[in-house]
Amino acid sequence: MIHAVRFAAAASALAVATAALAAPMTSSAVEAKFDAGVSSADQTAWLKDFSSAPNHVGSPHDKVIADKTLAMFKSWGWDAHIETFEVLYPTPISTTVEMVTPQRVTLGGQEPAIPEDSTSGNTAGALPPYVAFQGDGDVTAGLVYVNYGLPADYAALARRGIDVRGKIAIARYGAGWRGLKPKLAQEHGAVGCIIYSDPADDGYGQGDVYPKGGARPSFGVQRGSVADMTTYPGDPTTPGVGSVPGVAGRLTREASVTILKIPTLPMSYGDAQKLLAALGGPLAPEPFRGGLPLAYHLGGDDTVKVHLAVKSDWSLKPLYDVVATLKGAKHPDEWVVRGNHHDGWVFGAADPLSGNVAMLSEAKALGTLVKSGWRPDRTIVYLSWDGEEPMLLGSTEYAETHAAELKAKTVIYINTDGNERGFYRAGGSHEYQHLANAVVADVTDPQTGGTVAARARAKLLADSYDGRGRGDEDLAKAAEEGHDLPIAALGSGSDFSAFLQHLGLPTLDVSFGGEGLSGGVYHSVYDSYDHFTRFDDPGLKYGAVMAKTVGRLVLRVADADTPPVRFGDFADTVAHYATEVHKLADDRRTKDMRLAKLTAAGDFTLASDPLDRVGAPEAVTPTPFIELAALDNGVAKLSASSKAFDAAYAAKGANLTPATRAQLNAALRDIDQLLLDSKGLPGRPWYQNLVYAPGRFTGYGAKTLPGVREAIEERRFADATEYAKRTGAVLANYAARLDAATAIVGQ
Amino acid sequence: MIHAVRFAAAASALAVATAALAAPMTSSAVEAKFDAGVSSADQTAWLKDFSSAPNHVGSPHDKVIADKTLAMFKSWGWDAHIETFEVLYPTPISTTVEMVTPQRVTLGGQEPAIPEDSTSGNTAGALPPYVAFQGDGDVTAGLVYVNYGLPADYAALARRGIDVRGKIAIARYGAGWRGLKPKLAQEHGAVGCIIYSDPADDGYGQGDVYPKGGARPSFGVQRGSVADMTTYPGDPTTPGVGSVPGVAGRLTREASVTILKIPTLPMSYGDAQKLLAALGGPLAPEPFRGGLPLAYHLGGDDTVKVHLAVKSDWSLKPLYDVVATLKGAKHPDEWVVRGNHHDGWVFGAADPLSGNVAMLSEAKALGTLVKSGWRPDRTIVYLSWDGEEPMLLGSTEYAETHAAELKAKTVIYINTDGNERGFYRAGGSHEYQHLANAVVADVTDPQTGGTVAARARAKLLADSYDGRGRGDEDLAKAAEEGHDLPIAALGSGSDFSAFLQHLGLPTLDVSFGGEGLSGGVYHSVYDSYDHFTRFDDPGLKYGAVMAKTVGRLVLRVADADTPPVRFGDFADTVAHYATEVHKLADDRRTKDMRLAKLTAAGDFTLASDPLDRVGAPEAVTPTPFIELAALDNGVAKLSASSKAFDAAYAAKGANLTPATRAQLNAALRDIDQLLLDSKGLPGRPWYQNLVYAPGRFTGYGAKTLPGVREAIEERRFADATEYAKRTGAVLANYAARLDAATAIVGQ
Repeated sequence: MIHAVRFAAAASALAVATAALAAPMTSSAVEAKFDAGVSSADQTAWLKDFSSAPNHVGSPHDKVIADKTLAMFKSWGWDAHIETFEVLYPTPISTTVEMVTPQRVTLGGQEPAIPEDSTSGNTAGALPPYVAFQGDGDVTAGLVYVNYGLPADYAALARRGIDVRGKIAIARYGAGWRGLKPKLAQEHGAVGCIIYSDPADDGYGQGDVYPKGGARPSFGVQRGSVADMTTYPGDPTTPGVGSVPGVAGRLTREASVTILKIPTLPMSYGDAQKLLAALGGPLAPEPFRGGLPLAYHLGGDDTVKVHLAVKSDWSLKPLYDVVATLKGAKHPDEWVVRGNHHDGWVFGAADPLSGNVAMLSEAKALGTLVKSGWRPDRTIVYLSWDGEEPMLLGSTEYAETHAAELKAKTVIYINTDGNERGFYRAGGSHEYQHLANAVVADVTDPQTGGTVAARARAKLLADSYDGRGRGDEDLAKAAEEGHDLPIAALGSGSDFSAFLQHLGLPTLDVSFGGEGLSGGVYHSVYDSYDHFTRFDDPGLKYGAVMAKTVGRLVLRVADADTPPVRFGDFADTVAHYATEVHKLADDRRTKDMRLAKLTAAGDFTLASDPLDRVGAPEAVTPTPFIELAALDNGVAKLSASSKAFDAAYAAKGANLTPATRAQLNAALRDIDQLLLDSKGLPGRPWYQNLVYAPGRFTGYGAKTLPGVREAIEERRFADATEYAKRTGAVLANYAARLDAATAIVGQ
Repeated sequence: MIHAVRFAAAASALAVATAALAAPMTSSAVEAKFDAGVSSADQTAWLKDFSSAPNHVGSPHDKVIADKTLAMFKSWGWDAHIETFEVLYPTPISTTVEMVTPQRVTLGGQEPAIPEDSTSGNTAGALPPYVAFQGDGDVTAGLVYVNYGLPADYAALARRGIDVRGKIAIARYGAGWRGLKPKLAQEHGAVGCIIYSDPADDGYGQGDVYPKGGARPSFGVQRGSVADMTTYPGDPTTPGVGSVPGVAGRLTREASVTILKIPTLPMSYGDAQKLLAALGGPLAPEPFRGGLPLAYHLGGDDTVKVHLAVKSDWSLKPLYDVVATLKGAKHPDEWVVRGNHHDGWVFGAADPLSGNVAMLSEAKALGTLVKSGWRPDRTIVYLSWDGEEPMLLGSTEYAETHAAELKAKTVIYINTDGNERGFYRAGGSHEYQHLANAVVADVTDPQTGGTVAARARAKLLADSYDGRGRGDEDLAKAAEEGHDLPIAALGSGSDFSAFLQHLGLPTLDVSFGGEGLSGGVYHSVYDSYDHFTRFDDPGLKYGAVMAKTVGRLVLRVADADTPPVRFGDFADTVAHYATEVHKLADDRRTKDMRLAKLTAAGDFTLASDPLDRVGAPEAVTPTPFIELAALDNGVAKLSASSKAFDAAYAAKGANLTPATRAQLNAALRDIDQLLLDSKGLPGRPWYQNLVYAPGRFTGYGAKTLPGVREAIEERRFADATEYAKRTGAVLANYAARLDAATAIVGQ
């Protein structure tokens, strides 16, 4: 499901080099043997097989993949089974989109077969371009172009006197998560929504288009889910509980708040060009202009009318999660959990199978290790999820069903998804930041012969020098000074969400990317074996590198005396987030005062072109000073307690008695669950983690300290005050647990 | 010749409100009477007549305009004559551009007539699309796409292993002055150059294209001059001396360093698309990608070969400058000089006639004032320049011819050029910054009814709030605090250059713009009466506003007891420039050290995609610490002396005896000439002003403190040291003159 966007708004922490809490506890011999079991050829064969037919939820091939995966795990010596859920998953019966004014032009439909892509014609049984969990309907209305369809875009439209009430909104993909676009269109009164891939963001603006190159062709369409993930993921009709067959209390479709009410369809830029070229209304402001060869207009004047209709089959469909276990020799009730999904939108070669086959490579290599006599200290659980694409269904329903056991046993959840050629990227719980750095110091990059770690660092530095950095020069500075590379905060968009944000479990998510071109066929028919092996990861070299990287993460956590965490990294990161929150409040206040002053002076009116009128921004109550002391106190306590623990462990951690170590491990194992607040975030109680959440208006992109940060951003000032207290409290609890752990080490 | 770009890199000073040196000395009754003589209807009639036929240098209609202008001045009571020069001005005999590989496609030729533009078919006698002072030739070679064709682009190409040796470079317009593109292509070994208008910068990316809207259509072409203006403007064969008929010592074409050696032609984006769509080689990096619907490639592999040939008539052509004088009653030997050119590239409605007819409106209104018995205190000289477009020929040759008299008599030179609907913009000598602000507080904006000053201020503030500011938030802050709006530093691109930068005369350049769409037809056949009255300034309302604004500048300087200057504004501005220069040196040094470190570590190699190799930036000698103390001392002295003078004049200036005032005026009249250094700037002795110059790599865009700033930018560190001393010395001399003036006031 995920694509690079989830990293874009995320990374922000400064890593500070302190003494490592734990050196690798697994011998390099074990890792070398593990590496020998990883095979690009295996992965290539599995990828070709699994991507040979449509494999969306409910398709015959999705079940075939689950069955084959089960058999593979078993053949490698794992204890494995398939766990089945029954989920609401609407599939389209019919999709209609046509221009009716100024002339009738039929648009949409399945993407065409092309001779250079051998599976592109295998679309019997495939789903046409659509988005899951839109609201069925049949509407004909004037069109309004809403740019990316995010709040700032609606503000820009309002200043130009344009709204979407009673209209169909056409938004381009990008800048925020797909599902926000129809949701916001609906909230602003639109009766339908179209989402298209603009060539500036995803097409010839990125490179030669498929099949000449890897970028999105004019006829490629991005599918996806538009359920309201930011409220909760998983089956929209079973929030908070697992949709096991026959589950009681299932909501009706109408009662579910995460299913949209307006019909929505995705579109290619070839089709979108026909609509946008005819659109009237004011010239679109500069930030709205994309890569089509035309002057973008806003519409709103019914120069273009569109007929949009979607009818879906809303029956329940089966999910097949494959669960495989290697029992730990020393700590069977401490679990290292690792997952990647196996369902795609059509053939799903890059997304998700490239990650899935890397995971299978790891499983095979671990099986070989076991057959040679090795046993992990902790239990290792591998999960091949189903139903990630429609809305993280397989992982969320599993996590909800097994919440108590997972909370009681999980040490870490390690996630991957699609993978491709390029650079290492990691996100997750920051006490694992050093581990995420350490493993790739021991993995060789297949293209350069340097380490994966050195290449990631070099990329950050070179991009920063070249002015192509991700915006936070602190990152580059840290890297240049030789510190660990910061890992990103996780938002959503892959199967880690329930583990991190609902259950409060330590999480890592890793991938390689930045040189492959899978983005150009993301969620389209052309995300195929042919595209993947030509443009994304020829020879699946990075599939092997991914397996070696994740294998090390799994092995080092599974076999560590105490899991290799560094709380100082977490504390420094949270302190950085708190600084950002302060700056946000201050900047907002300054800007609000300025707005009031300029508006009162009539400056916006004077400055506006009378022939292309742009009104003043909407008046706001200026951001007040917000009581953040409770948050600051929590941050300060976390910082002090983390440093004290790290120091104590560095001094004495190597020589703990078995009993003390057991006490210590018990104290640390569930510490991240202290970041949960049972009330959850404002308006979205499913999200309980007060440090990491998907942004309400970013989606995949993370918002950190979300209870406070988003309340300031959204002018819910009472919430900001309340959540500063709540967040301060969870951080203080976390710090108190660290103090207890420090006391255990000091015994 | 000029377009908005000359303002883009320029404005940077902070205006500080101090006591005005001189209140307006001309009665508001005079200004009201002046206003009554300004007529949009007059301007409309003159515009229609003057833009009815091609009016480039040497065309019959260019002479007609000069003759009519002469008659008009005379009829309004001015003492007027035509001054004739004889200049080298090449006109094309034939222009050829065609793709020969992968297939033969004929490109180029005259722009087509369109029914919506009534003069677009009057191209008999018009010049086809071409660029003046390119080097004739006939070449066939592979094509390389060089983006904007500026130094950073060649650095990016070099890192990708692409060069232009033996190739034809195709560059897009924008980011730097036109003439730099073929000059740099030539310096890098190209055998020819094409410059095209990319639709992202100048086409549908800016709005609906002509004739539906005002933006550049796919078949529109920008002509222009490519003589090496940054070395010197004017006739390339008579540097430093006026090209009066029969002038001695005229250089041969071959000996002139400002005439290029390679054939060059401009191109429409309709034509460029045919070339770029076929171009091979590496994918262009992101900053190279424009608005054509294709993946931009760099070429260099001869996938596209082009035949490019230009043959010109290199004969001398006549120039007709119209010179008109109203003799001053009190100070006939103190001149207020005011100019606008009358030659265009084809019909030249916006550029230059919109400014030219505003100037004629002023002249008529002044004539009416004179007929009513009013006489200016100082002599007013109006100049309708010829030959601005080819290379500021009419103004430069005039200034060179009359250098001694101009230096002895000129109080200020006030320039305009094309004008259109929108916001007031001023640039020039900063001691006149307050006057430039003060006049527009008394002129009403025709669209909003507010003052022109209030509207300009509101625009700056609103743009800053909306994140569309020009990058220097200091400007917006100053405006918000109620200070004068800073005026821009002047680079080049219009007729002020010789006055400001060669003769050291105080200069102001003003215009209105930002709402009109003349940029879309700039230097094309479609810069017409029809386009102008539909899209640029319907009803010529801003033509009238321009006349009222400039009229006030002329009247207030002409009739002031002492010209209304404030040296504190100049000193503060120069201090700001000096701060920028320090920061530049520091930033360069830091960046150079970083480059060395990253290169030594191999980071660029590690970070590079092996399938799309980008090498390390070229190694450089790190920027050393540069001795800037002499500059700083000059700046400090200027600051102290300015403030002392302004304070003394505020206290006593109103009550000077006639003899003291005469002494004071004499001391101040030529003070700006003290900013000249007879050695000139490094490598370009014609440019003698050490505060203001056109940038060697920006062209129209100014570089302030250019001797130092550009030396740092271009790694001429010995020059930087030398020019820090020279610049410090001219500033100290300027300060010493101010001290003398202060002593006069204190007598």
